[in-house]
Amino acid sequence: MSEANAQAIANQPLDGEPAARVLVAGATGFAGALAARLVWRHPRLQLVAVTSRSEAGQRLDDIYPRHRVPLELIELDLAQADEIDAAIVAYPHGAAAPVVAELRGLGAQVVDLSADFRLRDLPEYERWYGPHGEPELLEGAVYGLTELNRDAVRTAELIANPGCYPTCSLLALAPLAEAGLVEGVVIDAKSGVSGAGRGAGEAMHFSNVGENFKPYKVTGHRHTPEIRQELRGMGARGPVTFVPHLLPLDQGLLASCYVTLSRKVEPDELRALYEERYAGEPFIELADAPPTVLDVRETNVCRIQPVLADGGEQAIVFAAIDNLWKGAAGQAVQNLNLMLGLGETEGLL
Amino acid sequence: MSEANAQAIANQPLDGEPAARVLVAGATGFAGALAARLVWRHPRLQLVAVTSRSEAGQRLDDIYPRHRVPLELIELDLAQADEIDAAIVAYPHGAAAPVVAELRGLGAQVVDLSADFRLRDLPEYERWYGPHGEPELLEGAVYGLTELNRDAVRTAELIANPGCYPTCSLLALAPLAEAGLVEGVVIDAKSGVSGAGRGAGEAMHFSNVGENFKPYKVTGHRHTPEIRQELRGMGARGPVTFVPHLLPLDQGLLASCYVTLSRKVEPDELRALYEERYAGEPFIELADAPPTVLDVRETNVCRIQPVLADGGEQAIVFAAIDNLWKGAAGQAVQNLNLMLGLGETEGLL
Amino acid sequence: MSEANAQAIANQPLDGEPAARVLVAGATGFAGALAARLVWRHPRLQLVAVTSRSEAGQRLDDIYPRHRVPLELIELDLAQADEIDAAIVAYPHGAAAPVVAELRGLGAQVVDLSADFRLRDLPEYERWYGPHGEPELLEGAVYGLTELNRDAVRTAELIANPGCYPTCSLLALAPLAEAGLVEGVVIDAKSGVSGAGRGAGEAMHFSNVGENFKPYKVTGHRHTPEIRQELRGMGARGPVTFVPHLLPLDQGLLASCYVTLSRKVEPDELRALYEERYAGEPFIELADAPPTVLDVRETNVCRIQPVLADGGEQAIVFAAIDNLWKGAAGQAVQNLNLMLGLGETEGLL
Amino acid sequence: MSEANAQAIANQPLDGEPAARVLVAGATGFAGALAARLVWRHPRLQLVAVTSRSEAGQRLDDIYPRHRVPLELIELDLAQADEIDAAIVAYPHGAAAPVVAELRGLGAQVVDLSADFRLRDLPEYERWYGPHGEPELLEGAVYGLTELNRDAVRTAELIANPGCYPTCSLLALAPLAEAGLVEGVVIDAKSGVSGAGRGAGEAMHFSNVGENFKPYKVTGHRHTPEIRQELRGMGARGPVTFVPHLLPLDQGLLASCYVTLSRKVEPDELRALYEERYAGEPFIELADAPPTVLDVRETNVCRIQPVLADGGEQAIVFAAIDNLWKGAAGQAVQNLNLMLGLGETEGLL
Repeated sequence: MSEANAQAIANQPLDGEPAARVLVAGATGFAGALAARLVWRHPRLQLVAVTSRSEAGQRLDDIYPRHRVPLELIELDLAQADEIDAAIVAYPHGAAAPVVAELRGLGAQVVDLSADFRLRDLPEYERWYGPHGEPELLEGAVYGLTELNRDAVRTAELIANPGCYPTCSLLALAPLAEAGLVEGVVIDAKSGVSGAGRGAGEAMHFSNVGENFKPYKVTGHRHTPEIRQELRGMGARGPVTFVPHLLPLDQGLLASCYVTLSRKVEPDELRALYEERYAGEPFIELADAPPTVLDVRETNVCRIQPVLADGGEQAIVFAAIDNLWKGAAGQAVQNLNLMLGLGETEGLL
Repeated sequence: MSEANAQAIANQPLDGEPAARVLVAGATGFAGALAARLVWRHPRLQLVAVTSRSEAGQRLDDIYPRHRVPLELIELDLAQADEIDAAIVAYPHGAAAPVVAELRGLGAQVVDLSADFRLRDLPEYERWYGPHGEPELLEGAVYGLTELNRDAVRTAELIANPGCYPTCSLLALAPLAEAGLVEGVVIDAKSGVSGAGRGAGEAMHFSNVGENFKPYKVTGHRHTPEIRQELRGMGARGPVTFVPHLLPLDQGLLASCYVTLSRKVEPDELRALYEERYAGEPFIELADAPPTVLDVRETNVCRIQPVLADGGEQAIVFAAIDNLWKGAAGQAVQNLNLMLGLGETEGLL
Repeated sequence: MSEANAQAIANQPLDGEPAARVLVAGATGFAGALAARLVWRHPRLQLVAVTSRSEAGQRLDDIYPRHRVPLELIELDLAQADEIDAAIVAYPHGAAAPVVAELRGLGAQVVDLSADFRLRDLPEYERWYGPHGEPELLEGAVYGLTELNRDAVRTAELIANPGCYPTCSLLALAPLAEAGLVEGVVIDAKSGVSGAGRGAGEAMHFSNVGENFKPYKVTGHRHTPEIRQELRGMGARGPVTFVPHLLPLDQGLLASCYVTLSRKVEPDELRALYEERYAGEPFIELADAPPTVLDVRETNVCRIQPVLADGGEQAIVFAAIDNLWKGAAGQAVQNLNLMLGLGETEGLL
Repeated sequence: MSEANAQAIANQPLDGEPAARVLVAGATGFAGALAARLVWRHPRLQLVAVTSRSEAGQRLDDIYPRHRVPLELIELDLAQADEIDAAIVAYPHGAAAPVVAELRGLGAQVVDLSADFRLRDLPEYERWYGPHGEPELLEGAVYGLTELNRDAVRTAELIANPGCYPTCSLLALAPLAEAGLVEGVVIDAKSGVSGAGRGAGEAMHFSNVGENFKPYKVTGHRHTPEIRQELRGMGARGPVTFVPHLLPLDQGLLASCYVTLSRKVEPDELRALYEERYAGEPFIELADAPPTVLDVRETNVCRIQPVLADGGEQAIVFAAIDNLWKGAAGQAVQNLNLMLGLGETEGLL
């Protein structure tokens, strides 16, 4: 470790002894960089290294001044990983699995931001993402949608952190699906540009995206099987249609979910269903007006409004998150907090 | 008429004798101002007056430099309206009807941009908009969605120019609805800010709208009965759900329409349905990729892509327009061209 | 006080006993609302009331969900102000002075966000802002540009919190001005839309501001005398030209300052001048690359880069702040921290 | 030529016989694509080919649906160039010169959008851009800032089309410079993102540019020598400082020019200077209020407001253009019109 990094890490402000020493692998993408910032500012976690495959040697705060993480990026060197208690891995799909496997082999608790451990059905994974490098780890991975899976997260060693679209859609739909009320759903989802990642290239050029709006990957987005898997697991029936659209803004995701109900529902019942399901949840807000993406920007909150239509035969549920926070790095830290026995909201308020 | 206006009008560039002398009433709103520009630049129409209730005395090109209409706004004076052959009325709902009635009484052909003559069912109109001032004109009014109603438009004296959301949604759905294939539809629509009009106030303040996105008027937008009336008229069955959302951009509207089909449809059949229905249409583009709002910005084009989902049991149709052009002033000129026996695309390319 | 407010205030999370009970008067404007949020989340300050003249009775988190201040707005009632140790006043210019006077009369320490106590020359104030209601308070007011006036701030009872443009421009120029090097300066400044305030009306309609850019108040912006007063006080000579421009973004302000130097300066000297002047400053960042407004968004940081041009005869200094933070509410809390003997950065990181 | 292209070209709408057959070389960059659209819609020019080095085989209207040029891109084949009367070359700097030379060798009139023929001083060119491939053509090239050089443009065979920043800055400053009144100038210029070109990569990613603003290439932008050369040629004295900034919008450029005057000037004199200099200019607008970039978007207009400051010792001149129109492709067509003896505004209104 460089002298400068060692000194910066020693000066990292902490509340007493750190609960864990944390590595962020792949810290130059949008989600990885935010994860590094969240860990750096976390009162109980010590950020001990940020890695990059192509930008090692640069300082993270030169690439992202706004995150203010004063560490030099290094290449991932697992020989030194014995100093690590936990890791957030922000590698591309496919590239993540081998790194996760090695980190697990060294005993580190891992939150993986990629899709590599989200789909329990290996052939389904390989259909959407190609060959899987570490299929034997699939069984032990916990799908880290915290609010829907909190107990399993607490005892997990490997978290498959959910995709941004699934996080928002599933939080919107879980109360209805678990109650057996979903007979079919159309999810019309809209995401800001940061969801496409830093390396998105010309497609995300301002001139193509600004003042523009469009659907994309209309019948084949990779988050579709993830949404279906979880909705089925909660008891939803009928067709699941998911269409993503690209918004001319940076961070923010809103899902408009149109649910064909299995029976007529009254407004009071609908409201009660959501209030009970999410009672005491620190990061869920139920709103009386439509949520907006600015309401949740730079927060780990999911803000939800359920309403009825078609005389109670249809529910429309709107949910908004910040795709980089609750849809990626924020939820990763939320999960890490639980895995380490810390307060769930620490470092996230 | 002021000397300056008389001189400007005399210098208006035209191809020979004008086919009609046109008034734009209410020219300081977004749609009215664009209508004034389109008439001003039209090779066969002479713009003879632009009126405003609260900004008379100002020049239109001081309020909207980009439209470059060098006329002073005047108060509407129907005593002088015998010099007018046709009018585009861009008044608010409710305020339009009396002005339209007077202009009709003077023999002018009228395209009305308001909702006042769109709904054929008077009680339905009054439920959404309040008392109707001129119900006796309803019967003679023609719903001016040009592509769906061209023959009636040609002989109309009074056009109810469609709303922006109905224009886009109905063009997206007509081929399926007319073929009897629609058993229910969810229309998830997204519009730029200009659709809310110039007087929208704090709700459209940049700080509330920029980098933001949200649904609004979720279960009660006034375009809902207009969409339902026309879809039913085309033969659509089942529930019609319409939810508008507000995009952080100025001009542009995209509708994502999720159709429950009455029977399974094959891709070739779907494509053929749209190609046949819209063969030769100058302002309809069928696309192989999702349309974007930039594709149609500052044009009168509606760009459409139909696709199948759920194994052919569901159709998803995307359509994009510029809400101020095809969704308002552009379609108004398109209709006026037909009413006056001019080429449908004159002044619009 | 309502039961709900009392309960919310009792539940406000604090680190031990609060150092002061704080009122935010005028909490529904952009700066006042942010001030309320900063105080609400501050570990040592207890937010005891948020007031509004026209929106009393509403909850602040209904108007600004993203600030998450769960208090009902009340009308300002100074009869109850004995429970207040300090106040941040976010009233319009002219309206602030009387409220400040009353609060001071009750013994509260006050940070005033308006211009009412910034200009030491009464005639100059009245030329730009109209009659001054409380001129006798002018002498005791401290101009709260913290980095340039820290000692006076510590002992102040009334802070005139600087304008956003002056904050950014003066921090950019102070090292040169104090060194006697400024013989004239052009300040070409660009601000996001939030600087115009919530009540800005049609001028800040998204359709007028989005995808647009323009200079405004070209030869008569009210921040000009404030900038001149302070620059002269620091020793700057020669003409001071200040031109503001409006950026199509919400929060962020960047000043490009072109300084005619009184003598040729070398790069090392320039750099040293800034490093020495701002050594140890928690909210000043000196950058090697041009600062951007995103670098400082939602922070209290001023990020500065000085460079030389014209062979060392001219300095160009770029500075960026968030106009609502360092340019208004953030600096207000920074000042309040000092006035109360708290750590300068508490509640601001 | 492909059958499809031949047919499309034959169907291109024209007013009678074309005045010239025009090639657009490099039609997939932002400026080249707009040039192709302008020629395609031009009533007197026949677009006979659009070329691309890396995207030959694709249709231009698949890459840019909004430009609606229904031609397949081909590789440039000069063996077929005898069918060409004129060409607009939109290649990168350095790559343009050899192509221009070949086209000139075949007798085609050429408007070159690159910098290759803008700087009359070869060493200066090579300092900024590297080795020049065709220095012998420099002498015959005409700097195509139409309003300042109209007579030379009319008889030119090779036009060096000016850069976007120089176009805007020089039009703002010419009346003062030609009158011998400029003793020094600071040009603080701001451009939309499209100015950086289509291939700009990560720097123009929406997430880096949206809601952001920054200076760039602060002391070394390539347009600096071009601006200096022309200002000196017009008689300007003293230091010329030019700093570009990047706006979060697509098309639009505004220059704020701060001029140290050689003597005190009165408001009437200033106004008269501009009115006389630009009398009758079809694309220059003098405004009484600050110009905005929306005022000129998608037009070939330069909108200018000159004002006085510092008691008449300083002039501030604001000018706005659309960087892709008057700053590139629009001015190219304006020049081509003159070279071919057509009306200067044809195809540009």
